[in-house]
Amino acid sequence: MFATPLFAQELQFAALRDFPLESGATVRNCRIGYRTFGKLNAEKSNAILFPTWFGGTTENLISFIGPGKLIDSSRYFVIAVDALGDGVSTSPSNYASQPRMQFPSLAILDMVHSQHQLAEAVLHLPHLRAVMGISMGGMQTFQWMVAYPDYMDCAIPIVGSPKLTSYDLLLWESGIHAIEGDANWKGGDYTSPPEAGLRTRADIEALAIQTPAYRVAHTRPEDLQKFLEAEETASIHGFDANNWIRQAQAMIAHDISRPFGGDMAKATAAVKARVLIVVGLQDHMVNPTPALAFARLLHAPTVELDSDCGHVVTSCEEAKIGAAITDFLSK
Amino acid sequence: MFATPLFAQELQFAALRDFPLESGATVRNCRIGYRTFGKLNAEKSNAILFPTWFGGTTENLISFIGPGKLIDSSRYFVIAVDALGDGVSTSPSNYASQPRMQFPSLAILDMVHSQHQLAEAVLHLPHLRAVMGISMGGMQTFQWMVAYPDYMDCAIPIVGSPKLTSYDLLLWESGIHAIEGDANWKGGDYTSPPEAGLRTRADIEALAIQTPAYRVAHTRPEDLQKFLEAEETASIHGFDANNWIRQAQAMIAHDISRPFGGDMAKATAAVKARVLIVVGLQDHMVNPTPALAFARLLHAPTVELDSDCGHVVTSCEEAKIGAAITDFLSK
Repeated sequence: MFATPLFAQELQFAALRDFPLESGATVRNCRIGYRTFGKLNAEKSNAILFPTWFGGTTENLISFIGPGKLIDSSRYFVIAVDALGDGVSTSPSNYASQPRMQFPSLAILDMVHSQHQLAEAVLHLPHLRAVMGISMGGMQTFQWMVAYPDYMDCAIPIVGSPKLTSYDLLLWESGIHAIEGDANWKGGDYTSPPEAGLRTRADIEALAIQTPAYRVAHTRPEDLQKFLEAEETASIHGFDANNWIRQAQAMIAHDISRPFGGDMAKATAAVKARVLIVVGLQDHMVNPTPALAFARLLHAPTVELDSDCGHVVTSCEEAKIGAAITDFLSK
Repeated sequence: MFATPLFAQELQFAALRDFPLESGATVRNCRIGYRTFGKLNAEKSNAILFPTWFGGTTENLISFIGPGKLIDSSRYFVIAVDALGDGVSTSPSNYASQPRMQFPSLAILDMVHSQHQLAEAVLHLPHLRAVMGISMGGMQTFQWMVAYPDYMDCAIPIVGSPKLTSYDLLLWESGIHAIEGDANWKGGDYTSPPEAGLRTRADIEALAIQTPAYRVAHTRPEDLQKFLEAEETASIHGFDANNWIRQAQAMIAHDISRPFGGDMAKATAAVKARVLIVVGLQDHMVNPTPALAFARLLHAPTVELDSDCGHVVTSCEEAKIGAAITDFLSK
């Protein structure tokens, strides 16, 4: 399993064998992709798990890891993990026995269970210093808090949510409707890609990922077509549409209060980690309301960024968020 | 032509005969729908023209007209006008010789020219006290200021724009892509309505018409499906898709500075009316930036509403806007 070096940022895979999902289905020979950065100390007390965002892979996380970045790999052993369904770990796009939309439903909790197995059974870590993640990575971080409350010291969800709002649901449902409304889609069994659907999906994402003010300030009206074509081309040739839908459905069903009868106060009472909650106040992709309500229930500190960057505030304000994380983890 | 009473709010039609469009095409036997409210005074000095918004008809304007409403028909003779392409006036949905997408391109300026003909040639009004309108009605109001600068005393664009921003363009292009991406669409020549496309179009509109905060506050996550199905059903059975696209394209091409070489300062220099500009600062459907820039160039007073109602601030803040309009018109 460790044919590639442990302390390297190259993509590695952990074999979880037969992995049971929340839906009751089982993924055979489940594989989880990951990359590590920095060195695990002798006490094994400096490991930080960093799962991927929606539609992203660990390759996208590399630029956030390093000295002076979002998380400092000169102090911490950072494990970036490919969430189930991201096209690197076992996913609709790479699971031959149940390909595409035959792939079973995924839950955010499935992603978390797979990451716990990776950390404990594969990497032999008795404990994590922290779990942190951006966007859907932040949703996984919230889920970690109540699924494995004793396993980490700290949890840092960044532009994540313990449960989606009606606005978030509307956004993801719109994208699913755009893809499924394309006659080429054929329930995922397409021979020609559903380009028209993926194009509209890209348009919807472009409407929500930053604020209107950001778009107005950064794109002149006469440049909109060029901007949009680049977004649409990236969508058509980018993240697999089947993976997109299964991960979107995982977010839609995400609710860490479910085992607590839907009572988020009871969910927060189960949290043992020290928590730092980072939100974008103008985030139109993951609404900050549930994360802020969670912070109040938990009396957890927050970093509230009022930026017209919207959801991508982690890129626009990386230095500020990174400094807050360094400070929080050093306490 | 005046078979129905002039001073009644029933729908009437004005025949404009052969009406030339900006595109160079001609609409044969062009008809404009309108409704009047209140009484024209002996001096013919109290007429206010009130064109429709995108996707709306004069029937939708009735509730905004009356004592204590947005515009007071006990003081003013209000002429609500159906914009070209709205399905009441000549439109892709009712123009037999060039139906559906064979209908020529429409411009906001075409709507304005047709309304000027209605006022001057049909209703024999030498002058208007004001032009006012909401949303695309506000865009027509901006267009009126420079197309017929001597014809009105006042102009009151409400959540309108002299030219769309990149964000607005993105929004309307998304909706067009959603409709045109439906295999049933067939360039407008559908036998089965493009329901999947109209459904996604409704989702996109629901994302933009109010703010995320408004949706989160007004719709619980568990009620989102019901909310969305109502929106989607209204879209599928509502405004004709061909009309929708032609009016959306008119907005996309809208730019009152075009005859001035794209110089908006020169456009404002052509304005002779007293102008009151009403915007929603959190409007995600018609971005307020160009209207506010126009107000600064013109040194015009503004009513700036910072409401999470977003674009529908005219409904949410009707009393406040109505009072400002009454005050402005009485000066």
